[in-house]
Amino acid sequence: MSLKPLGDRVIIKKIEAEEKTKSGIVLPTTAKEEPSMAEVVAVGADILNDEKKKDQIKVGDKVIFSKYAGTEVKLDGQELTILKLSDILAVVE
Amino acid sequence: MSLKPLGDRVIIKKIEAEEKTKSGIVLPTTAKEEPSMAEVVAVGADILNDEKKKDQIKVGDKVIFSKYAGTEVKLDGQELTILKLSDILAVVE
Amino acid sequence: MSLKPLGDRVIIKKIEAEEKTKSGIVLPTTAKEEPSMAEVVAVGADILNDEKKKDQIKVGDKVIFSKYAGTEVKLDGQELTILKLSDILAVVE
Amino acid sequence: MSLKPLGDRVIIKKIEAEEKTKSGIVLPTTAKEEPSMAEVVAVGADILNDEKKKDQIKVGDKVIFSKYAGTEVKLDGQELTILKLSDILAVVE
Amino acid sequence: MSLKPLGDRVIIKKIEAEEKTKSGIVLPTTAKEEPSMAEVVAVGADILNDEKKKDQIKVGDKVIFSKYAGTEVKLDGQELTILKLSDILAVVE
Amino acid sequence: MSLKPLGDRVIIKKIEAEEKTKSGIVLPTTAKEEPSMAEVVAVGADILNDEKKKDQIKVGDKVIFSKYAGTEVKLDGQELTILKLSDILAVVE
Amino acid sequence: MSLKPLGDRVIIKKIEAEEKTKSGIVLPTTAKEEPSMAEVVAVGADILNDEKKKDQIKVGDKVIFSKYAGTEVKLDGQELTILKLSDILAVVE
Repeated sequence: MSLKPLGDRVIIKKIEAEEKTKSGIVLPTTAKEEPSMAEVVAVGADILNDEKKKDQIKVGDKVIFSKYAGTEVKLDGQELTILKLSDILAVVE
Repeated sequence: MSLKPLGDRVIIKKIEAEEKTKSGIVLPTTAKEEPSMAEVVAVGADILNDEKKKDQIKVGDKVIFSKYAGTEVKLDGQELTILKLSDILAVVE
Repeated sequence: MSLKPLGDRVIIKKIEAEEKTKSGIVLPTTAKEEPSMAEVVAVGADILNDEKKKDQIKVGDKVIFSKYAGTEVKLDGQELTILKLSDILAVVE
Repeated sequence: MSLKPLGDRVIIKKIEAEEKTKSGIVLPTTAKEEPSMAEVVAVGADILNDEKKKDQIKVGDKVIFSKYAGTEVKLDGQELTILKLSDILAVVE
Repeated sequence: MSLKPLGDRVIIKKIEAEEKTKSGIVLPTTAKEEPSMAEVVAVGADILNDEKKKDQIKVGDKVIFSKYAGTEVKLDGQELTILKLSDILAVVE
Repeated sequence: MSLKPLGDRVIIKKIEAEEKTKSGIVLPTTAKEEPSMAEVVAVGADILNDEKKKDQIKVGDKVIFSKYAGTEVKLDGQELTILKLSDILAVVE
Repeated sequence: MSLKPLGDRVIIKKIEAEEKTKSGIVLPTTAKEEPSMAEVVAVGADILNDEKKKDQIKVGDKVIFSKYAGTEVKLDGQELTILKLSDILAVVE
């Protein structure tokens, strides 16, 4: 059982703090828009069918996204977030 | 007697909590936009006539949608919600 | 004497509660956007001239619309509502 | 001396209450957007040059419009209102 | 020394009350958007280069405009207003 | 060392009050949007590459702009303002 | 390990005050939108693939940007800001 995001949405799984520390990325809690780190779990059809967008993100990518964006869902015990591609700020390489 | 949604709207029937638990999906009540699960009952003409949209959703699909989206209607004892396709976040597969 | 709606507007006549009960549709008064049932009395020229829109609604259709949409007018004792096609949610079939 | 409305504007002259009563139209003062009745005095160039719009309204038409739309002007003792075509709801036939 | 309005802007010079009275136009101070009368002093390049707009207004035209629109400037003792063409409601003929 | 404005931005240098008085232009401090006078120092690439915009403004032009528009920067002791072309109201000729 | 900005975003690294002073640029803290100085670290794919945008900014450029724009991230001890190209006001040459 899995979720297929609609339109230009992406489904991501948040990465725990320890993992972030190992990677060298620290996401501070400032007064501004708070970013978070996650792994891409699924990519919507509108992104896969768009020549410009499909090369920018794929399943497995680690991404930085705006913490307050999207909707949280629990699936088989996993916490997922469904959000729009435009709410993903950057891919970690 | 049935309802035909206008434009890019979809009509859905909410799925009861027990059914959700069986499926392994839990939709938590957080401070964010609350998602809900439902089954698609009817799809509007603008979606069926759109090459890109018509493959993303069909009658019988189980979907996750934003709880506060759309308008509720009771038809022959059934509680239905009429909402826009853009308010449906993901399809459960 | 009659009214011709301008642009993409539709003129509808609300249906009384008894009639709704007979049809099996109940429109509850919830905290959300309240829907109402009505019959289409006139359809604007922009809808009739639009290939995609003209097949979705016609005079005589029973429709569900958002209760707070549109402007009410009394004509020869009849209460009518002038509203945009986009404020009509579904057609009852 | 006369006024030529710019763009997609129309100039209308409000119709007095007695005249409305004779015509059988009553425009109630409800909590919603209040409509009013008027006669079209002039039509702007953008409407006359638009194939779709020019057939929908002409000088002499009696129209229903949103009471709070437009700007009032007095010309040679006549009270006129300059408003956009989109603020005119319907033509009385 | 003169001012050349940029884009779709127009420069106008307000007409004094006595002149308005002579012309038969009275612009009342109502609760709505207050209109004012002025003479066109300069027309911006985007208007002159637009087939549809250039015939609607020219230097010397007397116009009705929304009193609160635009920016006031004093040039060589003259009070001028720089505003967008869309803030001009009608031309007095 | 200099600044190159991005997109459809312009960089301007405010003109002192004495200079304004000499030129005959007085910019009053009214309750409305306050205009100011300045000289154009640099013009962004999107303006230079646009057939319609490039003829409307150039380095050295004296312009009237909305006082509250843009961002102020000090460069080598000079006070500059970076703002969008659409915030420039008129060119003084 | 590095960050690849998505869409029309840019990643920048703020420049310390001493460095700014050496360069002759002083960015005052006024009541208006506060600008800041930074060096471009990465440029998003939508900018690199856009004929008009790709020549306006590149990695290594020193830029002035709106202080309150974007999202701050710490990567390997470096403070970075991810923001949209439209929030970058000018390039320092």
